[in-house]
This record gives sequence, structure tokens and C-alpha cells, in this order.
Amino acid sequence: MLEDKNKERTSLEKMGEFGLIDHLTQQFTIQNKSTVKGVGDDAAVLDFKNKKMVLSTDLLVESVHFDLSYMPLKHLGYKAVMVNLSDIYAMNAKATQVTVSIAISNRFPLEALEELYAGIQLACKTYGVDMIGGDTTSSKTGMLISVTALGEIEENKITYRSGAKENDLLVVTGDLGGAYMGLQVLEREKEVFKVNPNNQPDLEPYSYIVERQLKPEARKDIVELLGKLEVLPTSMIDISDGLSSEILHLCKNSEVGCALYENKIPLDPTVISSCEEFKMDSTMIALSGGEDYELLFTIDQSDFPKIKGNPSLTVIGHITNKSNGANLVTRAESLIPLTAQGWNSFQDS
Amino acid sequence: MLEDKNKERTSLEKMGEFGLIDHLTQQFTIQNKSTVKGVGDDAAVLDFKNKKMVLSTDLLVESVHFDLSYMPLKHLGYKAVMVNLSDIYAMNAKATQVTVSIAISNRFPLEALEELYAGIQLACKTYGVDMIGGDTTSSKTGMLISVTALGEIEENKITYRSGAKENDLLVVTGDLGGAYMGLQVLEREKEVFKVNPNNQPDLEPYSYIVERQLKPEARKDIVELLGKLEVLPTSMIDISDGLSSEILHLCKNSEVGCALYENKIPLDPTVISSCEEFKMDSTMIALSGGEDYELLFTIDQSDFPKIKGNPSLTVIGHITNKSNGANLVTRAESLIPLTAQGWNSFQDS
Repeated sequence: MLEDKNKERTSLEKMGEFGLIDHLTQQFTIQNKSTVKGVGDDAAVLDFKNKKMVLSTDLLVESVHFDLSYMPLKHLGYKAVMVNLSDIYAMNAKATQVTVSIAISNRFPLEALEELYAGIQLACKTYGVDMIGGDTTSSKTGMLISVTALGEIEENKITYRSGAKENDLLVVTGDLGGAYMGLQVLEREKEVFKVNPNNQPDLEPYSYIVERQLKPEARKDIVELLGKLEVLPTSMIDISDGLSSEILHLCKNSEVGCALYENKIPLDPTVISSCEEFKMDSTMIALSGGEDYELLFTIDQSDFPKIKGNPSLTVIGHITNKSNGANLVTRAESLIPLTAQGWNSFQDS
Repeated sequence: MLEDKNKERTSLEKMGEFGLIDHLTQQFTIQNKSTVKGVGDDAAVLDFKNKKMVLSTDLLVESVHFDLSYMPLKHLGYKAVMVNLSDIYAMNAKATQVTVSIAISNRFPLEALEELYAGIQLACKTYGVDMIGGDTTSSKTGMLISVTALGEIEENKITYRSGAKENDLLVVTGDLGGAYMGLQVLEREKEVFKVNPNNQPDLEPYSYIVERQLKPEARKDIVELLGKLEVLPTSMIDISDGLSSEILHLCKNSEVGCALYENKIPLDPTVISSCEEFKMDSTMIALSGGEDYELLFTIDQSDFPKIKGNPSLTVIGHITNKSNGANLVTRAESLIPLTAQGWNSFQDS
């Protein structure tokens, strides 16, 4: 489960900061016309011409957002980029650039940073995004990754959180709760490993949910799909903190209420079976689990025929008047007000 | 010297992440037309129209880049923004937006974050820059600040590190070494304080250099001055790691050499007197001290009459053929090759 610690080790101290950045970024290539100048000067230079630019930024902190005892560094690099691209896609934009800054203890060897950057590079290549800058510095304690993502979009396609209207349909992509249940499996195996370090866990039955946790994919494909289907969502947000929290953001920003149908929430069979195994309620996990990086959006009802039957899209409810509040309609057809039980990094857990 | 610990304390846990961001950013106002949408959605939306955009990012890590025992949080917030704006000005651009992400232990009260944001807000207001986003998360250990700064510029005014030509004049703004000597004074007082916590240090004689360390100013005024003087530098870089290191960057990127005259390096009298007191060589401090956030640039000789006699600008040398190398011409008129002795965060100190 833990990484092989017997690999070659090159000291970061010997590399120095500039040598390190040169070394880590030399493999990256530029794929977007909007990138005029990437790494290598005081600042990157970009040109979005007549398009609007969108920008989002996130911090990932060791022991708060990730645990290196089961998170391989390459996956961590990949995920750090995904978390940010997801915000760009949630604006209905095309992701074009990222900057990645890393604080890392000088006890890590160069090879560890190379693994991390291999994941970043794979993410950039797969998603057609340019690495245009960043900062690499030492940390006296844990590792921290700060990513800023940029994207481009035509003005009339920008999708804010604030555009949902009464009677719009509430749509979610993919399925929910997988990342959280993957985390439960990994945490359980970590405890087993502490007791018996020779135990080799069989994660095969959980591969879908473990991958949802360790190697999430941002929904670039959905932005492209909506473009092809000629569907312009009235509002959109990405699901990073759990469905419930994100729905409340949409409702608050759009000044509307909603009805979310419990029996419509898309769940993968592995999520259902692992919830049974862990004696957890799958609806609660989908509502509050977080880290799924799916998209939640609203569409005008007239657009329903365009999305009907698409396996990536599920209508889970509709928008109501603000006075109705934001409610879950349970399988027993009772109404329960949605509450933000999304994740709060400042809570001691 | 240490902050008053008896102030009102509001727990970060109680605020939650979203309440916290709302609370901290509500005082910020938008000042730039290019900011279409700031804080409050998945991503900020920007519109630079026909101008180019420049972007730079930096991490500041507790115990590596700052010491909270003598760095007031308000100053820290201000400095974190300055460090990044300096990179934007080094492109000859106008700084327009910043994002600020903070990882902080939940042992800090809300009031500490408010102090930090007061400094960020003061910097934004003073420099005409919009706060358009960020992330606030807990850290299990020290504090970390990640800032990304954006700016705008006409294409024909972009000043890279790579444009210096043989016979260009090498020009520096302000004076050098102050921030480093200010740090020496603060470190000395910290040691005194450890031994006798009731000792009240008299920092008055050192106020200039202590302010250079604790509250540096980025040279927005220089970009405006160069515009008024109609001087377009052939290359430019900001001095964050020490003059020597930055000159070597310019020379490497421009594929040239240079002659830097020791007797031309601008030093404030306080830097000279404190160097004598600390038995340090003032030239070495100016070359390697770092954190001055002045600008270093090259101009064509024909532009010399335009800058001549300006108290903010000092010609310190000239560009030579690459084969000559980058050299310091000492007061004794001997040549010493410049070496990068700038600061390396990965070195144990």
C-alpha cells in the first residue's frame, strides 16, 4: 500500500529552486493559442482575444485534503489539476491553462516531485491544458499544492450559479457518493495496514469507488456534449462538497427553491453495496459525501428532449419558487429541507 | 514585539468555509473594468478585450518566508500581495487582479484572519487591484499564503527578460539590501526578546530597513514613470532574490554578458551603517540579500537622456557580449564573475 521507499533519491537542496523548476517543467508542451508565453519569465503572457477568461483556484493540504499513506504522488498531481478544471467546466468554459505551486519538505527526494509532476503532466496532456507557471518552495511540515486554472468562453455561453428559474429541471452528471465511499475503503485498509503491515488488501471489488477517490476526472466531456446538444444550462456548479451543499448554493445564488427526488439520485451499484457494507445511508452519502467532481446544472424544460435518455445526464428534480425552500422528496414522498452538510475543513474530525 | 493575545477570539470552526469567505471578502470593491465577476461563483470572469494578460503566482510559507513572531498579520497580507504585483510590474504591465488562498490552523481566531485580510485589502486598494477569488482552508501545521496576480498590457509594451542587447544600459530602481538588513535587525531583536521578554526594542534608528522587510512596496510607480518618459525597457525583471541572481537571469535569457559597477550600486545610508554594525559587506548584501522588490531593467543607450538625473533610477552598468560573461567591476577596478547567491528555500539554514 505504501510506496517503495528504496528508489533512487536526489536531494532537493542540491537542485536549487531554479534548477528544480526547469527540470520539472521541461517535459510540458504548449497546446493552446491563448498561451503566448508560459514558464520562464516574471509572469506568463496570455491572449484570449475576444473571448472572456475564467479563473479559479484551490489549495490541497496534506492531512486535510489528502493522505500520502494511500494517495500515490502521481495521482495526487492529477487530482490537484482535476479539482480546478472542474470549476472551469462548471462555468461552461474550455480549460486552457493551469499554474501549479507546491510547498514540500526537503526531506522528499527529487524523484517524489517527479512523480507528482508526472501526474500533473498527464492531466494537462489529457485535458489539453497548458502549464504556464507556479512556484516551488520548501515547507517545514507537510505538503501543500495550490493550483490556479484558467479557461476561455464566449460571453453568451458563460453559465453562472445565479441563472436558475422556476420550473427549470435540475440535472446531474454521472453518479454520486463514489469518491466518499472510496475514501472509507482506503481509510479502513490503512487501519488494517497499521496492525499488520504485511497484509495485502484486495481492493478489486472496490476499484470503481477507489478510483473515484484517487483519480477523479473533471467533466470536460459534458461541456462538449452540451455544446453539441445545443443546450445552454441556465445555471451550473460543480459538485465538490456534496450534492446538498451545491444545490443550496445554486438556490441561494438564483433566489429559487427546489425539489430534489431521492429516488432519482444516480448511484453506482458499488456505492450501494459499499454503503450496505459500511452501514451507511446511500442517499446521505450522495448528499453530503463530496469530491465527486460531477456537474450540477439547470435547464429550461424546453431543452428536456435534447438530453432525454443520455446516459451521462440524470434529471433529479426541478426548481421551485424561493418560498418553497430547497427540499428533498423522499422515497416515502415526504419533504425534508436540504441542509448543507458538506465538508468543512475547519472542523476537527 | 509579539501580538496582543488577549483580543476577542471567534472560532474558525463555527464560521465554516463559506461563511468565512463571505465575511472576509465583503469589504473588497471592484476597481477594474476587466473584472466582470469576482468572488462568488465557481470561477471569476475577466475580459481583457484587445490587451494581453499577464499572470504570476507565489507561495509564502510560515517559517520559510515569514516569521509570525515579528511579522504582524496585516503586514503579511500586504506583503503577500506586493511580492506578486512586483512580478506583474516586471513585465511592464498594469496589475489588475489577485486571488489569495490561505491555509491556516483552526487554532487561529477569526480576528487573526481579519487582520491578514485588512492588509490584503489595503494593498488592493492602494494599488488599484481587484480581489477576484481564492480558497481558505485549514492547515494542520503552519500558515501558508498563495497569491496569483494578473495584469494587462498592450502587446508592444510587454517586457521580457530576454530582450537585453549589447551596449544597453543596466538600470535599477530605488536602493538595495534594505530588506535583508531589516531582517537581520528583527532576528537580533527576536533573540533578545527570548532572553528578556520585557525588553522593548528601539527600532527607530532602523525604521527604514525594518519597513523594507515588513512592508515592501511594489514599483507600480516605475511602470507609470517609464510610460510618461516614453522609455520602453529592452528587458526587465524584479529583484526578489538579490541583484546578482536577477542579473544572471537577464543575461541568461538575453544571451548576453554584463559589467556591473560596484561603486554604482544604490545603497541607503541605513543599509551602510547597519552593515557596519553587523560587520557585513554592503556590496555582498545588495548582490545577494533579496526581498527588495525593486526593478532591474535594460534600456537602449539612446534613452539615457530621458532617465538621466531621475532620483528613482540608477544606471549600474551595461550589457556586454555573452563571451565576456557577467561580471562585477569592483571599486579597485578588478573583475569578479557574478554568482547566483540568491536565496534557496530548499537549503537548510
